[in-house]
Amino acid sequence: MTVTVVGSIAFDGVETPSGKRDRIHGGAAFHFAQAASFYTDVRVVGPVGDDYTDEDIALLATRGTNTDDVERVAGGKTFFWQGKYHDDLNTRDTIVTELNVFETFEPKLSEASQASDVLFLANIVPALQSAVRDQCRAAKWVAMDSMNLWIDIARDDLVEVIGAVDCLILNDEELRQLTGAATTYAATREILDWPKAPSAIIAKLGSYGATVYTKDGGFTVPVFPLESVVDPTGAGDSFAGGVVGYVAARLAEDPNLVVDRDVLATALLHGTATASHNVEAFGAEKLYDLPGSAVQARVDRLVELTRVPEAPVVLRA
Amino acid sequence: MTVTVVGSIAFDGVETPSGKRDRIHGGAAFHFAQAASFYTDVRVVGPVGDDYTDEDIALLATRGTNTDDVERVAGGKTFFWQGKYHDDLNTRDTIVTELNVFETFEPKLSEASQASDVLFLANIVPALQSAVRDQCRAAKWVAMDSMNLWIDIARDDLVEVIGAVDCLILNDEELRQLTGAATTYAATREILDWPKAPSAIIAKLGSYGATVYTKDGGFTVPVFPLESVVDPTGAGDSFAGGVVGYVAARLAEDPNLVVDRDVLATALLHGTATASHNVEAFGAEKLYDLPGSAVQARVDRLVELTRVPEAPVVLRA
Repeated sequence: MTVTVVGSIAFDGVETPSGKRDRIHGGAAFHFAQAASFYTDVRVVGPVGDDYTDEDIALLATRGTNTDDVERVAGGKTFFWQGKYHDDLNTRDTIVTELNVFETFEPKLSEASQASDVLFLANIVPALQSAVRDQCRAAKWVAMDSMNLWIDIARDDLVEVIGAVDCLILNDEELRQLTGAATTYAATREILDWPKAPSAIIAKLGSYGATVYTKDGGFTVPVFPLESVVDPTGAGDSFAGGVVGYVAARLAEDPNLVVDRDVLATALLHGTATASHNVEAFGAEKLYDLPGSAVQARVDRLVELTRVPEAPVVLRA
Repeated sequence: MTVTVVGSIAFDGVETPSGKRDRIHGGAAFHFAQAASFYTDVRVVGPVGDDYTDEDIALLATRGTNTDDVERVAGGKTFFWQGKYHDDLNTRDTIVTELNVFETFEPKLSEASQASDVLFLANIVPALQSAVRDQCRAAKWVAMDSMNLWIDIARDDLVEVIGAVDCLILNDEELRQLTGAATTYAATREILDWPKAPSAIIAKLGSYGATVYTKDGGFTVPVFPLESVVDPTGAGDSFAGGVVGYVAARLAEDPNLVVDRDVLATALLHGTATASHNVEAFGAEKLYDLPGSAVQARVDRLVELTRVPEAPVVLRA
């Protein structure tokens, strides 16, 4: 079972209360692949410039990730983002955004990437996400991310691609912005009832965890308890990598599996575990050499943090 | 098993996107008692003015709550608070705060209130909380709330009373403010390690639920999924009422019960359920006639939202 991810590959400059890095590996597809590769084979589709060396590609290929569809644009420069986080790490200022080769990116999927059973559309222009979705007709399960910018300037295109995927992953405030609903729960109910709708909505809750709703139920995973966070960059993409990678691994075991509330509940534990490791070092550095057992240990801890004991009913009538 | 609560009894003026009420029943002890009385006998200790009528007292006495220790101050006026919520309901502006009789409140507990097995110290001056704690030497389990103001201007007193209770209930940002810790988890670990420390810390996460940590583990409850919220006023106190009321009911069943992670995990489900009803109408109005079965139904829903299914391990080594 292979997962294809289409999205940005970048260099990031990051400053947090823990320190500063001028140029580290980043981008949505990069963080996603570092996490998803714990579970399954990954193929990355995204553009880089001449400045992305063979050593950089080798790092993207961690745990066997296939980079055949990474497009090296001659004469181009790799997407560069620079930001500085505030002390609470929940907000950040963007200092530099140089889209470079990402600005004119038109995803070209090889036959192998098109044939993937699972597809993740990282945050890019919604119309491009639709074009990629159309190239992958055989995909059994497709998830996508997006952002507030596209809700503002390309809402119709966004709604169209949302209607063509199985699982929408968005921040909770973006879900409310997309629908105008008063609560995140109301927003998920509304989207699930669209004429063309995904079968699952995952709300990322930032430092509070994540929630999934499907037609058959819901589940909330708490944030993984950490003493400190070094760099939140890529947390959402490594979360998506854990979620989508886990689903792909389950589909590999049982191709007829219905990706329902229960499958996604466990997937959320895994996404939260991979993201928790991701934020404990700059970029995705902690994930490069991490053993899968370290991810599983955090999944087990999250199971314990959500375990409800048997208890007597004591409410008065 | 009786719970004594010491705290404010108020009239509130509230404006939210759902509407406006000029003068409704409020105050920490009022909201707490409305919730805790689903589980156990409650005794309220707090001051009111001449303007608090017998009908008002009768409402405070919902589900049998004892009001013998409600002190009616002759010539005084009841605490009045007026506020307006912003559209997202997560922030509010205080328009009027008239402490009135609450300003000079010195809690006087009757022998019956002093003899309660369970005590809740709602948010008042920490030195007064300590004085009440000292009057209730026989209490088996004591919980407390506080607020950022006391961290700023009476931190030593606050630390002292925290060291004299079994369970501290605070907002997550207040826990970080109190300790200077980078994460809520780090803050709870730090407080649990104080020389004099409670055995449990509950972090209220606003619209994201709540987390408890003890020496033997932790648990996170998600927010109850609501389509809309009418008025968040008193959510924290009705949450505390559900938590503390539930613990009291369990102690009534088994006086030797250790209030550990598992007991508090279920208590958090109950607190979240009572709070979710509280916010669906102005003030605590929805709780007055609510059947206990409506609270239990939401506890059952929360159990389903945290249920982790059996699942195969699929992580690569």
